[in-house]
Amino acid sequence: MRVIITAGPTYEPLDPVRFLGNRSTGKMGYALAAAFAAAGAQVDLISGPSALPAPAHPAVQLTRVETAAEMYAAAAAGAPAADVWVFAAAVADYRPAHVAAEKIKKAGDTLTLELVKNVDIAATLGHTKRAEQFAVGFALETTNELAHAQEKLHRKNFDLVVLNSLRDAGAGFGHDTNKVSVLDRAGQVVTFELMAKTDLAGELVRLVLVRRAAVITT
Amino acid sequence: MRVIITAGPTYEPLDPVRFLGNRSTGKMGYALAAAFAAAGAQVDLISGPSALPAPAHPAVQLTRVETAAEMYAAAAAGAPAADVWVFAAAVADYRPAHVAAEKIKKAGDTLTLELVKNVDIAATLGHTKRAEQFAVGFALETTNELAHAQEKLHRKNFDLVVLNSLRDAGAGFGHDTNKVSVLDRAGQVVTFELMAKTDLAGELVRLVLVRRAAVITT
Repeated sequence: MRVIITAGPTYEPLDPVRFLGNRSTGKMGYALAAAFAAAGAQVDLISGPSALPAPAHPAVQLTRVETAAEMYAAAAAGAPAADVWVFAAAVADYRPAHVAAEKIKKAGDTLTLELVKNVDIAATLGHTKRAEQFAVGFALETTNELAHAQEKLHRKNFDLVVLNSLRDAGAGFGHDTNKVSVLDRAGQVVTFELMAKTDLAGELVRLVLVRRAAVITT
Repeated sequence: MRVIITAGPTYEPLDPVRFLGNRSTGKMGYALAAAFAAAGAQVDLISGPSALPAPAHPAVQLTRVETAAEMYAAAAAGAPAADVWVFAAAVADYRPAHVAAEKIKKAGDTLTLELVKNVDIAATLGHTKRAEQFAVGFALETTNELAHAQEKLHRKNFDLVVLNSLRDAGAGFGHDTNKVSVLDRAGQVVTFELMAKTDLAGELVRLVLVRRAAVITT
């Protein structure tokens, strides 16, 4: 089994020193890479800027990228040959419309930054997904969590979506623990207790393997 | 001797997950904190988000902050009682005018972000500097390096400004080495070779101690 996993944030440069970023650390994606490798999979881990060390398992191949465009290129290259896609990265929705070649000098009291939409990696690859391929997405929502996650699952052609709520203490960005619910296409919801991201990764891998077996045999 | 040092980047939030950041790692500032402590100083290290561990020396007191406003508050509290100020942080010049309480949902193809100027920590404190206090600033320039650094020294009331050029390979953000020139108020320039940031920190501390002794005795 080949698994491709995106992890971490993307950084979208404004100039040589400044960027738009987000608070993803990559912990959940790296834990999933280790858990899939432990389950016998060959793993392509495509990571945005993260302070984490590369997973030690020899079956994990780490590719470091910076921007959403670079992450898309790496994911698009690996996706056709992969059996399972896991989109755990927090990809920037927008990037600065212009990237300055030199450091922007401070000038007026205000500055207007024009942003343009980035490619939606999961949705774009979702259009190319074959029946035997299995896609898992992540959703981080602060309002109407379940409705937004359901919408995301269908629009991006996921088989499962892992819903992270920032409302849960100890869950999400920067924490070593996470508390998630997993939704499937039938609308079924599996809720996990708060647990270490490494333990949750093992649970999610088990769930993916069971659901994928069901998809393949039906 | 009491030394206050700012280090690392600042992160300016757009919403609970996104921020404007920069590529400073804090390495130079943390190395300076360790070098000043080794020289016998009491050090207040005020650090923006950094993956670095707190310096081990017991004379270094670490305060972690996130935004320019928080860094200013911490620096303003410590500056009056400090003999030496070192502004090694890469403070964001601008922050988003509005911080969304909930994660911003992706909507149109473009997004306009209004930014407003942050307080200039070094310049603001510079106005309060007493004759016996000694201030060191850093300048990172990609064009007209010397002229910009000279202008910064006078505007911010620095005694020395350390000029970092992004043009030098192995120097600046993310690297373990750095190559700098140091300018003083008389227009004199001291140029250092490329060296480890930890070694450079020791050289800069020696230079500060010599120059400060000259200022105090004249």
